[in-house]
Amino acid sequence: MVAADEIADYFDRLWPLNRSLTGDGVRESLRILAELVPIEHTEVPSGASVFDWIVPPEWNVREAYVVTPRGDRILDFRENNLHLLGYSTSFEGKVTRGELEDHLYSLPAQPTAIPYVTSYYEPRWGFCLSQEQRDGLEDGDYRVVVDAEHRQGSLTIGEIYLPGETEREVLFSTYLCHPSLANNELSGPLVTAFLAREVSRMPQRRLSYRFVFVPETIGSLCLLHLRGEHLLKHLAAGYVVTCVGTDTPFTLKRSRRHASLADRAAVSVLRSARQGFIDLDFFPDGGSDERQYCSPGFNLPVASVMRAMYGTYPEYHTSLDNRDLISFSALSETVDLYSDIVAVLEANGSFQNLSPFGEPQLGRRGLYPTLGTAEATQETSATMWLLNMSDGEHDLLQVSEQSGHSVALLRTLADRCVASGLLDALPVP
Amino acid sequence: MVAADEIADYFDRLWPLNRSLTGDGVRESLRILAELVPIEHTEVPSGASVFDWIVPPEWNVREAYVVTPRGDRILDFRENNLHLLGYSTSFEGKVTRGELEDHLYSLPAQPTAIPYVTSYYEPRWGFCLSQEQRDGLEDGDYRVVVDAEHRQGSLTIGEIYLPGETEREVLFSTYLCHPSLANNELSGPLVTAFLAREVSRMPQRRLSYRFVFVPETIGSLCLLHLRGEHLLKHLAAGYVVTCVGTDTPFTLKRSRRHASLADRAAVSVLRSARQGFIDLDFFPDGGSDERQYCSPGFNLPVASVMRAMYGTYPEYHTSLDNRDLISFSALSETVDLYSDIVAVLEANGSFQNLSPFGEPQLGRRGLYPTLGTAEATQETSATMWLLNMSDGEHDLLQVSEQSGHSVALLRTLADRCVASGLLDALPVP
Amino acid sequence: MVAADEIADYFDRLWPLNRSLTGDGVRESLRILAELVPIEHTEVPSGASVFDWIVPPEWNVREAYVVTPRGDRILDFRENNLHLLGYSTSFEGKVTRGELEDHLYSLPAQPTAIPYVTSYYEPRWGFCLSQEQRDGLEDGDYRVVVDAEHRQGSLTIGEIYLPGETEREVLFSTYLCHPSLANNELSGPLVTAFLAREVSRMPQRRLSYRFVFVPETIGSLCLLHLRGEHLLKHLAAGYVVTCVGTDTPFTLKRSRRHASLADRAAVSVLRSARQGFIDLDFFPDGGSDERQYCSPGFNLPVASVMRAMYGTYPEYHTSLDNRDLISFSALSETVDLYSDIVAVLEANGSFQNLSPFGEPQLGRRGLYPTLGTAEATQETSATMWLLNMSDGEHDLLQVSEQSGHSVALLRTLADRCVASGLLDALPVP
Repeated sequence: MVAADEIADYFDRLWPLNRSLTGDGVRESLRILAELVPIEHTEVPSGASVFDWIVPPEWNVREAYVVTPRGDRILDFRENNLHLLGYSTSFEGKVTRGELEDHLYSLPAQPTAIPYVTSYYEPRWGFCLSQEQRDGLEDGDYRVVVDAEHRQGSLTIGEIYLPGETEREVLFSTYLCHPSLANNELSGPLVTAFLAREVSRMPQRRLSYRFVFVPETIGSLCLLHLRGEHLLKHLAAGYVVTCVGTDTPFTLKRSRRHASLADRAAVSVLRSARQGFIDLDFFPDGGSDERQYCSPGFNLPVASVMRAMYGTYPEYHTSLDNRDLISFSALSETVDLYSDIVAVLEANGSFQNLSPFGEPQLGRRGLYPTLGTAEATQETSATMWLLNMSDGEHDLLQVSEQSGHSVALLRTLADRCVASGLLDALPVP
Repeated sequence: MVAADEIADYFDRLWPLNRSLTGDGVRESLRILAELVPIEHTEVPSGASVFDWIVPPEWNVREAYVVTPRGDRILDFRENNLHLLGYSTSFEGKVTRGELEDHLYSLPAQPTAIPYVTSYYEPRWGFCLSQEQRDGLEDGDYRVVVDAEHRQGSLTIGEIYLPGETEREVLFSTYLCHPSLANNELSGPLVTAFLAREVSRMPQRRLSYRFVFVPETIGSLCLLHLRGEHLLKHLAAGYVVTCVGTDTPFTLKRSRRHASLADRAAVSVLRSARQGFIDLDFFPDGGSDERQYCSPGFNLPVASVMRAMYGTYPEYHTSLDNRDLISFSALSETVDLYSDIVAVLEANGSFQNLSPFGEPQLGRRGLYPTLGTAEATQETSATMWLLNMSDGEHDLLQVSEQSGHSVALLRTLADRCVASGLLDALPVP
Repeated sequence: MVAADEIADYFDRLWPLNRSLTGDGVRESLRILAELVPIEHTEVPSGASVFDWIVPPEWNVREAYVVTPRGDRILDFRENNLHLLGYSTSFEGKVTRGELEDHLYSLPAQPTAIPYVTSYYEPRWGFCLSQEQRDGLEDGDYRVVVDAEHRQGSLTIGEIYLPGETEREVLFSTYLCHPSLANNELSGPLVTAFLAREVSRMPQRRLSYRFVFVPETIGSLCLLHLRGEHLLKHLAAGYVVTCVGTDTPFTLKRSRRHASLADRAAVSVLRSARQGFIDLDFFPDGGSDERQYCSPGFNLPVASVMRAMYGTYPEYHTSLDNRDLISFSALSETVDLYSDIVAVLEANGSFQNLSPFGEPQLGRRGLYPTLGTAEATQETSATMWLLNMSDGEHDLLQVSEQSGHSVALLRTLADRCVASGLLDALPVP
């Protein structure tokens, strides 16, 4: 189990950086996370055509603030990067309070929260602030400084690829475009990076693993542009890792295929955790990069296991989604849960009963207690389910679902049966 | 919305006419309804072979009554055409009270109701009366007069055909063989005729519409004899319109196919009405002409949307099924409900996403709010569902079912997406 | 209905015999049951290879007992054959109480019960006794006598084959390897033999019937070795008859196919019995010979209808599963229930509507009341369901399930419709 403190340290280092679709904050964040497992960068140039989209110019901010009529500097980007509208254009000049108002964003219903607002594809300048602060603004002239650059740079994809025995691949995708926000979304990159470290330490991997850090939407589209064909061929299961920091029950958003391997493996782990979990069908009208992975042209087996989901908690997309909202032990627990999913995916497989006419004699092979009195042990029960359902049409996840035995136990016994010549492992499809 | 008064006027003119399987009462009823939309007549001669059946002789009644021993004229057909057994043979003569009793039909359990009784295929004469009246009959000789003609005439099919852009057809079938009865069955012909007028006024029709007025069973068999091959080829959806006059919840009797387009369109409208409705699977042992349309040789997509269904209300098939039982505003509401079904059938369609790899950029096409804060509007949500499910395997009804958005909204947005080059309309199958 | 007394008589004669996988007790039991219907014996020699198994040596016991230090003869096999470990090896000698303890089996949690223990495939000698008796054993030397023979003999299969009009076959399989035990398992052989007598007395059989009496597991494997190919080709439905003696609700353990003809026929009868029944999906990790019949290589349509199921009642596999636990009228009732299943299987069939376009005119054929008032009788309703669903894709069991009419009524009406030329009987598949 990853120590909560270790996660907290990384959180605190990443928190102040200004992340957005593009820019140096993203790259610096990746460099910090790469201390856990090396991360490869792929740069996609501004202006590149990606399916129906154009990669936006790169955005970097030098400074941004407002000076009040009394001479106080407020809304300083350096104090809280949420104060600046995401992708704000540059501006320097004097404006009246009335003119300024047209460029301010606040939340009347949550008067203490600074909202997180962006304008990626429509050029605007603006500032975000709490309703309380806004209400206290005096009349008079304000000096506005936004010194930001939009240049022909590039969008950065961070990628960790951990090869296994086969090219069958598992994808974890998270997004690194949110500035100082905690559950949504420093939690996703943190869990993904720590999970990658866990997977990198596995002594053996049947499957290959890809962990990607992209800006939301345009980033996953870039990834699909680069890796779509590969994923269509090799992807066994994938997950969008987002909103995983709160100490609240898990939520599964299923893939568009509803019962893909990604969905079944997640359900298997979430069920055996024996707490309830929220089980949602796929929906395309909200959410994150699963919308791209599950667009009809790709329809990849990509689900999402979350804690408090986007849009369902009041602090969402405001300055209240901060260090206080999340729990570092919850983050660690999420790393564990995804590790369990990895374990299920590794253990899963299909087998062919080589002795399918009647039950084989387990006793002769030391697979059955020799005395008739003994209650059939768990293992005997699991072995019998395994033999009965190993007809080439069921994988261990299905045996587990019908029998109630864990995939891990079934795999151990399946390997024993393979050694005894009772089962044959079918090739991974 | 059709005015309840207008329906009431037609009801009152139609009420006294003697309708049966055949005869002048049927033709006169059709002439009155044809004031709404012209109705074509097809006459099928008595004696014609129709599948397993023979068209019966035409039946017309000149007069029918009984004179009591005291000389009072009772059970006069002119007072209430229910008094005469349907298809009664002619008879003139004196009979004792005891002999008369063998020819009387009443309902001991409903002593004030005159039952509706017919004997189409077994020659008999008889009268129907309330149990109260029957109990008051004195001993003595009765003079009986039934002056009715069974002649080689014809059975009349009334038909309205309203062509649309394609030959794909929607059928509404009702029956005009019941005499003075209200819910079952002046309500069906009235709703059908008014619905036909609504459809005739539509500025544009994608589908073609057929409205038929037939006697029950033998009439729909005649129609299938004439139009069966055509319907097998072109029918998209059909409905038997019967028992639609009471101010009670709607009942859907599904087609034999259970989830045909007719069923799905009805469910979509009935659900969005947000009152509950009674959802019945198809049953062949009771009901109306859906039994013929859904016989195994045809198995057409024909359902039935009703209010108080045949056999489920105590006034059914008695003189108590009269003007007091029904509500003209309920009839108008039923016309509306069927119009909504027509609207859904017109709006439905399947589309192909032309930009299926990832989401297309809606903002660039003016299909998305440019500022990230705005709650995704209904329209954005509906557009995203539409794009995600437009893979050629789902029609708008299915998108509606999964997303909760109305078919009408989805169609509006689909047309907008077609104009934007994002979707292609697939040909109607 | 078979008289409970007659069953009781057979029970009492069979009770004391020592039955096991093999041996003279089995053969003597079969000779007694053969008084009801002749039973053919097939002997499979010891040492024969049967799939993954070897037929064990034949086991016969001459005597077995223990003499206490005081000289009392205890644990005498002649008093209760449960005292001897099943398939115990021979032994004669003096042992200390401590040495004896290693060869004793008792149930601390059920101190008055002698457990039923076997060691078929691991050579051992041993005795079974109540915990109470065990606790009272004094210290000192015990003389042990087990005079048992393991010889190259054979395993006996008892078989009754009752041919019918077609080779389509129904199998009833029970096991005769348990010594003095009542519900599990003299009840199964008794019900099977009496059921065979009922079936043998049927004036006509559409299907053929096979009743087999085998030792559990190895016996059904021998049967499958001999008849597997035949069963794969001809078996319509089969049942393992076990644990059918208690006066408790019925339990259905479904076949691995879940909705095979065997399952559907059983459900049809169990439902119409209108008491609840316990409906269990197939499970391979416990149970009886259905585990062999439903192994993936065979996957035969074999279910099991039981009363108090193995492993679910406290007396299971102990001396408390005796005459007091069961009810002879319950046994008779089980014979009846299986007879009803036979009746359903005999009555079932598929039909083709020869007049599928619209409803045929039933009245003309005397299949419909001629007067419109009459409530559609049960028969009319059933006839209409039958005609509507006779499209070659539904059998009578399915018509029964959808309509609620019994298979028996549907068959009577189907035969009537065949006589009227409305239906054609489809060949048994």
